[in-house]
Amino acid sequence: MISREKHDRMANAIRFLSMDAVEKANSGHPGLPMGAADIATVLFTRFMTFDPKAPSWPNRDRFVLSAGHGSMLLYSLLYLTGYEDITIDEIKNFRQLGAKTAGHPEYGHAAGIETTTGPLGQGIANAVGMAIAERKLRDEFGSDLMEHYTYVLAGDGCLMEGISQEAIALAGHLKLNKLIVFWDDNNISIDGPISIADSTDQHARFRASQWNTIAVDGHDPDAIAAAVEQAQKSDKPTMIACKTVIGWGAPNKAGTHKVHGSPLGADEIAATRKALNWDAEAFSVPSDVLDAWRLAGLRSTKAHKEWQERLEKADPEKKAQFVRRFAGDLESGLDSAISAYKKKLAETRPNPATRKASEDALEVINGVLKETIGGSADLTGSNNTKTSQTASITPDDFSGRYIHYGVREHGMAAAMNGMALHGGLIPYSGGFLIFSDYCRPSIRLAALMGIRVIHVLTHDSIGLGEDGPTHQPVEQMAALRAIPNLMMFRPADATETAECWQLALEHKDRPSGIALTRQNLMAVRTEFEEENLCAKGAYDLISSADAQVTIFATGSEVEIAVKAHEALTAKGISTRVVSVPCFELFYEQPEAYQKAIIGNSPVKIAVEAGIRQGWDHIIGSDGTFIGMSSFGASGPYKELYKHFGITPEAVVAAAEAKLG
Amino acid sequence: MISREKHDRMANAIRFLSMDAVEKANSGHPGLPMGAADIATVLFTRFMTFDPKAPSWPNRDRFVLSAGHGSMLLYSLLYLTGYEDITIDEIKNFRQLGAKTAGHPEYGHAAGIETTTGPLGQGIANAVGMAIAERKLRDEFGSDLMEHYTYVLAGDGCLMEGISQEAIALAGHLKLNKLIVFWDDNNISIDGPISIADSTDQHARFRASQWNTIAVDGHDPDAIAAAVEQAQKSDKPTMIACKTVIGWGAPNKAGTHKVHGSPLGADEIAATRKALNWDAEAFSVPSDVLDAWRLAGLRSTKAHKEWQERLEKADPEKKAQFVRRFAGDLESGLDSAISAYKKKLAETRPNPATRKASEDALEVINGVLKETIGGSADLTGSNNTKTSQTASITPDDFSGRYIHYGVREHGMAAAMNGMALHGGLIPYSGGFLIFSDYCRPSIRLAALMGIRVIHVLTHDSIGLGEDGPTHQPVEQMAALRAIPNLMMFRPADATETAECWQLALEHKDRPSGIALTRQNLMAVRTEFEEENLCAKGAYDLISSADAQVTIFATGSEVEIAVKAHEALTAKGISTRVVSVPCFELFYEQPEAYQKAIIGNSPVKIAVEAGIRQGWDHIIGSDGTFIGMSSFGASGPYKELYKHFGITPEAVVAAAEAKLG
Repeated sequence: MISREKHDRMANAIRFLSMDAVEKANSGHPGLPMGAADIATVLFTRFMTFDPKAPSWPNRDRFVLSAGHGSMLLYSLLYLTGYEDITIDEIKNFRQLGAKTAGHPEYGHAAGIETTTGPLGQGIANAVGMAIAERKLRDEFGSDLMEHYTYVLAGDGCLMEGISQEAIALAGHLKLNKLIVFWDDNNISIDGPISIADSTDQHARFRASQWNTIAVDGHDPDAIAAAVEQAQKSDKPTMIACKTVIGWGAPNKAGTHKVHGSPLGADEIAATRKALNWDAEAFSVPSDVLDAWRLAGLRSTKAHKEWQERLEKADPEKKAQFVRRFAGDLESGLDSAISAYKKKLAETRPNPATRKASEDALEVINGVLKETIGGSADLTGSNNTKTSQTASITPDDFSGRYIHYGVREHGMAAAMNGMALHGGLIPYSGGFLIFSDYCRPSIRLAALMGIRVIHVLTHDSIGLGEDGPTHQPVEQMAALRAIPNLMMFRPADATETAECWQLALEHKDRPSGIALTRQNLMAVRTEFEEENLCAKGAYDLISSADAQVTIFATGSEVEIAVKAHEALTAKGISTRVVSVPCFELFYEQPEAYQKAIIGNSPVKIAVEAGIRQGWDHIIGSDGTFIGMSSFGASGPYKELYKHFGITPEAVVAAAEAKLG
Repeated sequence: MISREKHDRMANAIRFLSMDAVEKANSGHPGLPMGAADIATVLFTRFMTFDPKAPSWPNRDRFVLSAGHGSMLLYSLLYLTGYEDITIDEIKNFRQLGAKTAGHPEYGHAAGIETTTGPLGQGIANAVGMAIAERKLRDEFGSDLMEHYTYVLAGDGCLMEGISQEAIALAGHLKLNKLIVFWDDNNISIDGPISIADSTDQHARFRASQWNTIAVDGHDPDAIAAAVEQAQKSDKPTMIACKTVIGWGAPNKAGTHKVHGSPLGADEIAATRKALNWDAEAFSVPSDVLDAWRLAGLRSTKAHKEWQERLEKADPEKKAQFVRRFAGDLESGLDSAISAYKKKLAETRPNPATRKASEDALEVINGVLKETIGGSADLTGSNNTKTSQTASITPDDFSGRYIHYGVREHGMAAAMNGMALHGGLIPYSGGFLIFSDYCRPSIRLAALMGIRVIHVLTHDSIGLGEDGPTHQPVEQMAALRAIPNLMMFRPADATETAECWQLALEHKDRPSGIALTRQNLMAVRTEFEEENLCAKGAYDLISSADAQVTIFATGSEVEIAVKAHEALTAKGISTRVVSVPCFELFYEQPEAYQKAIIGNSPVKIAVEAGIRQGWDHIIGSDGTFIGMSSFGASGPYKELYKHFGITPEAVVAAAEAKLG
């Protein structure tokens, strides 16, 4: 048991590391780490099951700092409890180029950072995904191998963001009772007291979403501990409102928004040292305090060892499955299953909508991979994301593999990030491509973190027809292609759809989006190829030496390109067709390949039922683009294609005009 | 007083028009109009103050169909009450290309459509903005000219979207008691019963956000009316939970998700006709029913006339201000004020960050235009959006002109749309450019609707420094430029900032974003020019006949281009610098102007601290781009610029390399 005096000194170590690091960087947020130091100290010295020597132990408790601007809280904890990555030099190097201690916690920079946070509300929603993963894997592998808590520290900013409501509602609905959120209830926002912008009764709000809530003094360690104990017994997720003073300990600035996001200044730091009776120099932690923290870091060594023994003794198949899945590796049988499926497609040449083709591909994939976990933001029948293997998960039964996320695209995407970060699962979503706009911040974070989440994005153009411009993506492909590290696929038929799925699964360190049609498409890949032709991002679908015209197209417009090719060929104009299912993969090919694919036809035409932005790099600024330059319209889709001039005839006319 | 029997027949007219139109279109959503017909009938026959013959009457009540998929409810109401735009032929033409009756209600297609809805949650958040506008203008112009209700019909989907929480919390905080939301509480989502995805106690949730809530049978007209009367007396916004049966009246499909988004089919329609004792043919409304509806449409004629008389009698200056602002015209004094300000800038050549320059420009603008209403998503000090004229609005005092939106970017952007749609105000926001991702759906809708909202987007690149990649925009400029009709500005110094503000204000039929730096920038515009040089989107900042090198740049990178120009000139290499503050305006210039600006230098270089996407059209795919190709990093900004190679030296080196 840690005495109150020792607790205070341990918490103050966080405070001084934080204020000193911010001061040295002359940039950062001391207020949260100082205010929440007591909460974090209680959590990490009395509750957290974690092993700093084995940070990726799958059964560790997860701690998510949703209020990511308070990054020094996390870095202090990681340093103090003995994570190798975060040395005192890293702390001194806070917010400097190349440091592991970036301005906001960056997943992958150092072990112990469970997720990248900073954009508010994301962390709490990631944590919901982690808690879903824990609950799902506990059901699958048993409590022997998987049973842990997910803790979150969230601020007022997190709770004001709409995504938090989606996350809270989902967690309450699913009864994720091992999710415990500390709300750093400090009454302060950047603009001033919270009361200038918010009058929410957070307890009532969380309870309305079926949460348990508790209120405590966030500077009373025993009260915090009692609350956590109570939370652990709840059959609901719990929000512990911790009344704190932002910048606690700073005699003149504590409790004001001045301490939120600026260094305290030398005078105030000196005054804080005096007030808290802290003699140690900057970046120096008294040895008794460091020892106590390092001891706290050893709390779960035994638990970890026992877990490891249980894993070793587990049924070999179960163990292998568990280990493989946490390594992020795929089943070896996947490739042959997809190959067999492609062979069948080449024989039958079906013409489904690619959303249906995606369902068919998923039927194969979900049969091989037990770790896929699907879902939809209330568009299951439209997204075709549910297969025979994926029964629905319900609050009381997690044996299924499908989540009805509700109309909550943002919460869905962030929860998927949490599942991927947790490990053991490969989450895929279901939504309309247009609503990628609703979850863009989470998709971006997946790309930044380099994690495997797969977004099934159907109804990918004016091809959706009557629902009109509010539902018709026009700029979404370009906008998503703009996100670094995200693979955006737009397959042209059932075969390409299977190949794109395969690629999305194979890349374990990046997210994907797969844009799919509502409308049926003819098979453009008619011969069986063992090779995944989509893997290079673009490839010759129809070759032609010395082509006068090259037509580049994606998705539903490849069919148009193929038809235009036929017409042009009939007119004696040699024409090549390049399918471009993935810009990102194409631009990662050797320059020679890119040049060869782009080729040197005198006439280059791109066809895509979206905007031109991004295509000039392939067709040149003097190339012809056949697509959209405005929002869409409501009407039957075949009429829309004609109305907007995206037809084989338009391609042929453009080619002839250019050839003169 | 309308008898119950008459009420039922009037409501059934909505039901049959809706199901018949969906059937004819073979596409659409009959469930909501049939379920909510009673609510709408009560509202439009007993409460709504509106004049179908003068749909833009500023003091009308606003009705927002947040559940936009139920568009036939709105079209039916507009037809029945006598709006000229919606004829029976338009109803028959539902969801056809060119019809005013698009799949979802499209603002601008027909009078009476107050906002474009369909993307869920947007409408309720627009309505919050409308209610803010009403409250603000009531304070300013008095109840004689402005006092009305804003009514919303929202479904479960709207309430599941996170944006609804932001909107609800803001409305509750601001005590918008003239906002009345009908929740179409039908227990059904697309995937099945709501219970598969949600367990929220909506009453408790709304009350937690300081709303009044009432529960009624949504098919009992008197109960609905009593609830509205009670709501009108409340000092808080009110949510009326109307328990309804989706697809009410359809004997076999009512109450199931089958009736949500598909035609009922001929058999079910026939059965419904029988069950509801409705003899009239499709698209034919019995004359007694149509007469009753047209009478309802005349309910406010007198009120409108009286209001018009009050306006005529009002103080001439007040009247002129009111009329001008609702016409969306600017004060004539604006141009000269901006001109004088630009003259001063040319004399003093200050080097502020453009976010500060924006504040200075706003100080001028807000002094001239009383209709600007600013705000920030809790970043006021960073966004520099508050000027001497804009005191904060508080729940009890709307005399100010500044809204503390809280950390609610999405709710802010949607509320701004609502204010712009309401008329009388020009809303501008404050946020970080990176968080445009959080409110992208609302920005898109502003562009689709063609309304004037202005987004101040600061901290627009790696130039923000230590906060790191979660906060550093890289792809945001490209992603926003991708949205049709949105003007994205990135001014290079204080003068360009003033010019971009002027352009944003002058375009009353489109939204703008202004990307601004955190860091100081040198003045690149050193001579006074009466003409707004930014108006053409791109212009010669430094001309050079027969330039060997042309450098194109935006925002903070124009300074880099100018410095590179100096270095290259010193080396005897003739160099031109083009500032490109707005792609959209540039591409709207005559082709000759575009060609002249792009020019024919052998070497073309673009410099922008963002991604290349979109630049190839200007520099060609063989042009040199100096910018970002990955996410950013945490560190002091000057180091980041060096690290990512965005420097004058890099531009010079690239130019020399190309020249060989």
